[in-house]
Amino acid sequence: MNGAESLVRTLVACGVEVCFSNPGTSEMHFVAALDKVEGMRPVLALFEGVATGAADGYGRMAEKPACTLLHLGPGLSNGLANLHNARRAGTPIVNVVGDHATYHLQYDAPLASDIAGLARPVSAWVHSSTSAKVVASDGARAVQAASAAPGQVATLILPADTAWLEADAPAQPLPRIAPAAVSSEAVDIAAKALRAGKKTALLMRGHVTRERGLRAAGRIAAKTGARLMCDTFAPRVERGAGLVAVDRIPYFAEQIVDFLKDLDVLVLVGTKPPVSFFAYPGKPSWCTPETCAIHYLAQPHEDGVGALEALAEALSAPREPASIAPFQRPELPSGKLNSYTAGQVVGHYLPEGAIISDEAATSSGGSVLFTAGAPRHDHLVLTGGSIGQGLPVATGAAVACPDRKVVCLHGDGGAMYTLQSLWTQAREKLDVTTVIFANKSYAILNIELARVGAENPGPRALSMLDLHNPELDWVSLARGMGVEATRAETAEEFAEQFANAMKSRGPRLIEAVI
Amino acid sequence: MNGAESLVRTLVACGVEVCFSNPGTSEMHFVAALDKVEGMRPVLALFEGVATGAADGYGRMAEKPACTLLHLGPGLSNGLANLHNARRAGTPIVNVVGDHATYHLQYDAPLASDIAGLARPVSAWVHSSTSAKVVASDGARAVQAASAAPGQVATLILPADTAWLEADAPAQPLPRIAPAAVSSEAVDIAAKALRAGKKTALLMRGHVTRERGLRAAGRIAAKTGARLMCDTFAPRVERGAGLVAVDRIPYFAEQIVDFLKDLDVLVLVGTKPPVSFFAYPGKPSWCTPETCAIHYLAQPHEDGVGALEALAEALSAPREPASIAPFQRPELPSGKLNSYTAGQVVGHYLPEGAIISDEAATSSGGSVLFTAGAPRHDHLVLTGGSIGQGLPVATGAAVACPDRKVVCLHGDGGAMYTLQSLWTQAREKLDVTTVIFANKSYAILNIELARVGAENPGPRALSMLDLHNPELDWVSLARGMGVEATRAETAEEFAEQFANAMKSRGPRLIEAVI
Repeated sequence: MNGAESLVRTLVACGVEVCFSNPGTSEMHFVAALDKVEGMRPVLALFEGVATGAADGYGRMAEKPACTLLHLGPGLSNGLANLHNARRAGTPIVNVVGDHATYHLQYDAPLASDIAGLARPVSAWVHSSTSAKVVASDGARAVQAASAAPGQVATLILPADTAWLEADAPAQPLPRIAPAAVSSEAVDIAAKALRAGKKTALLMRGHVTRERGLRAAGRIAAKTGARLMCDTFAPRVERGAGLVAVDRIPYFAEQIVDFLKDLDVLVLVGTKPPVSFFAYPGKPSWCTPETCAIHYLAQPHEDGVGALEALAEALSAPREPASIAPFQRPELPSGKLNSYTAGQVVGHYLPEGAIISDEAATSSGGSVLFTAGAPRHDHLVLTGGSIGQGLPVATGAAVACPDRKVVCLHGDGGAMYTLQSLWTQAREKLDVTTVIFANKSYAILNIELARVGAENPGPRALSMLDLHNPELDWVSLARGMGVEATRAETAEEFAEQFANAMKSRGPRLIEAVI
Repeated sequence: MNGAESLVRTLVACGVEVCFSNPGTSEMHFVAALDKVEGMRPVLALFEGVATGAADGYGRMAEKPACTLLHLGPGLSNGLANLHNARRAGTPIVNVVGDHATYHLQYDAPLASDIAGLARPVSAWVHSSTSAKVVASDGARAVQAASAAPGQVATLILPADTAWLEADAPAQPLPRIAPAAVSSEAVDIAAKALRAGKKTALLMRGHVTRERGLRAAGRIAAKTGARLMCDTFAPRVERGAGLVAVDRIPYFAEQIVDFLKDLDVLVLVGTKPPVSFFAYPGKPSWCTPETCAIHYLAQPHEDGVGALEALAEALSAPREPASIAPFQRPELPSGKLNSYTAGQVVGHYLPEGAIISDEAATSSGGSVLFTAGAPRHDHLVLTGGSIGQGLPVATGAAVACPDRKVVCLHGDGGAMYTLQSLWTQAREKLDVTTVIFANKSYAILNIELARVGAENPGPRALSMLDLHNPELDWVSLARGMGVEATRAETAEEFAEQFANAMKSRGPRLIEAVI
């Protein structure tokens, strides 16, 4: 077998089942190997940012890495923004980037570039294979690196001759490195702080915002009255009726300051103290009160769930958690369609087990509010601030969870970055309903323009935030990529179209004109 | 004035007139400054790869840099692929990337990343401003660096506080660094080689493939019989009736070997010896005959035009060049629409002064052939192999040359990478006619799959090259972004639609089903 086949066999043996791909000439042997090996599903994307974002969505839901297949430095470049988001999400991804044959690099052909240099800012692990004989073991190492807690981007650069030359055999999977155990001292310190009767919050991120971790946190809250919070950009939160509810840290710095102002103690589980997303003239970047004590119960690479359970035991917390979300569906709205009424519709119809991929930005408030009591679901958000993540993440989540309805809530500005996702959804017949909130502007920037103190913006400045000229027609764009689409201009229209989408399967787009 | 205003005033004073922009919060002061300063036209793109590719197209035609305005590491990342192409093209670009305020970086907020690290692989010059007091002089240095021959990407990283804090004054423009003069020894060596009566070719790239350089090359050919060639990926070639015609080096390695096989002497003007684009098992990467002598008349940063003129004088070449292309328009075809007949239509109707942005890949042959005798025009091609350059380059070329018709010839696979270009064309009412050759596949990869020796590709491999499922509807996609569009399925339909597009102004798209 050649190197490519040895690599694909190794990846499959390591549990990598999906390859989000946009290949070129230098990856043709990898592509050919997909037919020689059972167990690797190739998913084609028409742009690499779709492939990497889909690998993020897949990894968050499957809790194991997919691989990508990207074409040299430029292919990697196109995928970098969503790899940045994946890095911030702590998502395991085996990022395979083809390269020129080892002996061809010296010629500086047009596509040659510093691939490792481009990969480093987003990758915890970067390696370029040096021979077809070792590419299989390099692949096993990449999977191990990607799977290290909480999840990392591992970039494996694959020179074309390491793919086409003869290899020996696939490599054995390497053992998965378990998350580091939290010391009993860390648990004791947190327990002591919680017993002291001060105003305390648990701030969580990572695997702890799933049912088991949340349950332990809810028990601690039941015993101590601690507030339960998650990061503004907690990558995946299990929520809805019957689960322990947590408050998400708000977005703007002054909101965070207000949210935390009464705290005496902040216990961090898999995260760090919240800071302002951007700096603003005259406003603080640091948002935790100066008088608030900060304790790290668990770092992101540590076993936060185990730490929370140990903490609950140390506190002799009751079995039943506090803060369980009650089942509560909003009534259907009528009249004007806006973020609020759209959220009521989403909350009214969201099916059990849904996965929400949320990049609705200024339009997300209503949906977050009105799905709090919906049947249990997963909520995935933009993690690294690089817009254009929601559509690909929805795509990958749907590949990971074919039996669950995926609902993608997206702003129109961000959706234009990776709209090619819709084609992959149509091709793979993925069960994704995309709602585009068409406010025809970079709405967040209209807020930010004032907040950063840019005074009296003139027509040129305002035109840089405005998407009215010309107006995007999302129904045409979706149909152009094979996705059925409709436009809703009232709450009633949106309710009817969203209800239909929840009842049927397959990709669907609704342009919600707000 | 604040730092942003001092920078914009400096850029304008240095001759930078256009800003291809996709800003975010950290760039709001730069955006606001656009209204305080006359002379900088902001052009909004809905994806950064459009902005950087447009800056490339602009720079190739305007022969001076535009600036970009990108949003931190992720915005830069999205623009990197076309900056890679611009680097290969030798295009001057002042690449402005916003960053967090200097004091905010320590907090590692979600959007923080290693911007300089991401910029280095594509940039000849990278600098991050340290104070509002020096950002203006940094801007002047960036313009000087970008303008160094043959043209470079200069990345200026702009922390938000260097934009919003008080500055002193704009900086004075720095003198442009002229291309290095070629030594008389280099001219003498080339003259001696050309006088020796051996089979000699001039291989050209850069400014020499414009009228003046070509004219000097044609005089040398008239005197010596030397063949005139340009690089496969010569970024801009002036061609058509009345201009000196050159042969473009073919794409595939074995074609190049055949093309060069009789040569005794290769004289390089602004380029290096041609190599295979990719490596292929058992095929050579180096394409020049081992027995062929290689002389460098001019390096890319040197004055190739001056060198060719000095060489013509040294050879006592006649005033009249050889190899002048005669005026010749093809007849209109009928029947089947394919690359060949489409090329006949383009050659039949191409107006004088047109700019062709050519990323038609496997579909470009006919157009290249049948425009050889059309009225004089510019031919811009994909330079770095990163597909998705043609639409943005056309966009930028149209901004640079508002009185000239831009014709963008593009494969459907590549066009999906940066289709957002169409929205900018509609918004700016640019006179671009886009022809999408819809073969519904990554056609080049079907050829490459066999060439790299990937044997008996199976259904999964072949599906990775196929865009039929679902079929893209380019008419819907274009209309979704405000561009009038039609579909042509026969040569007659294409002729009628293309003729109409050449007669009218404004953006227009034709899906040529081949």
